[in-house]
Amino acid sequence: MRIVSGMRPTGRLHLGHYFGVLRNFLKLQEEGNRCFYFVADWHALTTSYKNSEELKKNTEHMMRMWLGVGLSPKKSTLFIQSLVKEHSELSLLLSMITPKSWLEWNPTYKDLKYNLLRISELSKELKERVGESLKNFLPSLNLKVHKPQKFQEFMLEKFTSSLIDALFEGLIEGETLRELNTSKKQYYEIDTFGFLGYPVLQTADIIVYKGEGVPVGEDQLPHIELSREIVRRFNRLYGKTFPEPRAILTESPKLLGFDGRKMSKSYKNAIYLDEEEESLRKKVMAFFTDPQKLRRGDPGRPNLCPVFSYHRLLTPKEKTLQIEEDCKKGILGCVDCKKIFLNSLKNFLEPIKERYERVSPSYAWEVFKEGSLKAREVAGKTLEEVREKMNLP
Amino acid sequence: MRIVSGMRPTGRLHLGHYFGVLRNFLKLQEEGNRCFYFVADWHALTTSYKNSEELKKNTEHMMRMWLGVGLSPKKSTLFIQSLVKEHSELSLLLSMITPKSWLEWNPTYKDLKYNLLRISELSKELKERVGESLKNFLPSLNLKVHKPQKFQEFMLEKFTSSLIDALFEGLIEGETLRELNTSKKQYYEIDTFGFLGYPVLQTADIIVYKGEGVPVGEDQLPHIELSREIVRRFNRLYGKTFPEPRAILTESPKLLGFDGRKMSKSYKNAIYLDEEEESLRKKVMAFFTDPQKLRRGDPGRPNLCPVFSYHRLLTPKEKTLQIEEDCKKGILGCVDCKKIFLNSLKNFLEPIKERYERVSPSYAWEVFKEGSLKAREVAGKTLEEVREKMNLP
Repeated sequence: MRIVSGMRPTGRLHLGHYFGVLRNFLKLQEEGNRCFYFVADWHALTTSYKNSEELKKNTEHMMRMWLGVGLSPKKSTLFIQSLVKEHSELSLLLSMITPKSWLEWNPTYKDLKYNLLRISELSKELKERVGESLKNFLPSLNLKVHKPQKFQEFMLEKFTSSLIDALFEGLIEGETLRELNTSKKQYYEIDTFGFLGYPVLQTADIIVYKGEGVPVGEDQLPHIELSREIVRRFNRLYGKTFPEPRAILTESPKLLGFDGRKMSKSYKNAIYLDEEEESLRKKVMAFFTDPQKLRRGDPGRPNLCPVFSYHRLLTPKEKTLQIEEDCKKGILGCVDCKKIFLNSLKNFLEPIKERYERVSPSYAWEVFKEGSLKAREVAGKTLEEVREKMNLP
Repeated sequence: MRIVSGMRPTGRLHLGHYFGVLRNFLKLQEEGNRCFYFVADWHALTTSYKNSEELKKNTEHMMRMWLGVGLSPKKSTLFIQSLVKEHSELSLLLSMITPKSWLEWNPTYKDLKYNLLRISELSKELKERVGESLKNFLPSLNLKVHKPQKFQEFMLEKFTSSLIDALFEGLIEGETLRELNTSKKQYYEIDTFGFLGYPVLQTADIIVYKGEGVPVGEDQLPHIELSREIVRRFNRLYGKTFPEPRAILTESPKLLGFDGRKMSKSYKNAIYLDEEEESLRKKVMAFFTDPQKLRRGDPGRPNLCPVFSYHRLLTPKEKTLQIEEDCKKGILGCVDCKKIFLNSLKNFLEPIKERYERVSPSYAWEVFKEGSLKAREVAGKTLEEVREKMNLP
């Protein structure tokens, strides 16, 4: 099966990336699929076009780490998105046949935009505030309404988002922006044309290799559904050209950071794949455990313990069962448990770190540039077919 | 000065194209500017992606006719947009920094969309119908309004366009769609992501050659203004890279078709640059003239006569003055006047037609493919600079 997937180079890779993404990349690679894995540097620009200084550094780090965890240019095509211009050409062509509304109704679009600006709460609040009034107002307009319930919901949604636009235009509720600690400028800076078109570019990324399977997390499902719609539309307009890509829902445990929240760069609670030994020790020792287990003698609840979830992933099975038992009995204290955790982590990270350090930046660039040339060959053939079908020279 | 401009290959070229566009292309070429003229086949897709069968034929016709009217590959860079992939790459990069609202507020965007679907009338009507009610409703929401007048206008605009969306969603006013002879499908098919992004691609077209002057008609001014804004934003974010392109407002008389309406392919009233002799004669003889001049003896009003506007363009000056005088005096009848018109037209069109026919399709392709390679060289250098500034490899 042709597998296509990419990762945005937005910073240092951590355990969450490994178990959420890279482990699946490896599995698919080892199963003998034809895999195209790319560093999605253009996608990184959609949200961080203002801090592109980091982009090159992050790309380099990602390439080295991919090779570090065992992705192999002999088995997979490893490349950089922006070095394969065909992605942008196909994206442009797809943009011509993609209704704007498909993108605007994409649930992740609004969510992400609102979350970036912390205005999702405000949106809910506004909806509640004007909801009832609007419900009474709409019938007074004497329109012939066919689906009253749907019409109300539809207009409430639109009305609320118009109010938010009005807010950022400075027409209403000036203090709110100050409370949100945001500005008109920020609002328009995030809500770009490219940000809206993210799923179109993503579709081009996949189908330019006639990708059949796309390993993704659940949050990406609406995007893949959109890709399938765009593909169907293209095939209907110009003749069967692309397979409809399917999401490969991967097993990706929600990894917790040492503070008990989801592991994330922005929470500063992540364990990095190239974490130095000393800071690794500190982070492990700072890890949250079952809050009811205060002393060694207290019985613990492994299922609720962030540390235990790591044992499941990293500690040999037999030992893990032992830990579970001893913890429940109150025989095993958290400090000792963490020492085992630290040891498992070291065993896991050391070979990765070692390989990572052996991969020089120049070697990584060489590998990915070569991979990009290979990717271009495949993508170029697809574009030839596409141009022929669309009557372009 | 670096001049950049393109034309969408949407059909046979007529006199309107010549006097509105090509004459200016020629003038700028002869004045010794560095001109980049391209067949905008990607742009043609924005509105006619469903009938792309015509695209190649129209491109070929356009290339041959450009050479026919005297555009020269020795003096100008003549090329095909879709053969210069750098346009799509730069367009994608610009999309990341272009606020969506800049495009949505572009007056030509809404107008064109609405006109394509003949819903501009409906939009006005809806606005009137709900305007008063909304004006009373908004204050009842107890929002802190800073600019009441602007807020009302803003919300009325948004509310109306939400109602139109609701209409096409089938939530209200079912009969209206039937009356408009349009459908939900058509609505979404026209309102694509690519259509919205037209000005972004257009900006890329211009600045990828660091274009300074863009010969345009008045209707294109908002687009050029948008290009300037995007350029300013890019230069501010990544350092001065592009000059701000200026519109070169060209003298472009509104040419009338033989039925007295604006000359346009869609009105089927155009005189084509490669018009056959017999149909040329018929069209000239069918031309509208001053409706008050019924007989040879009647005095005419040349300033109101569509035929006379052509004499101004095509008939030698002295003779034109004579015609004006004789028409006003009632000495010159319309049939005789048209004979002179036909003669002037022939003198004008014959050398163009002759050259057009001498340009074989294969020669035209050769010239434009070579031109595209030259264009790519320039565009490629710009993209190198852009990638460097944006920290892309």
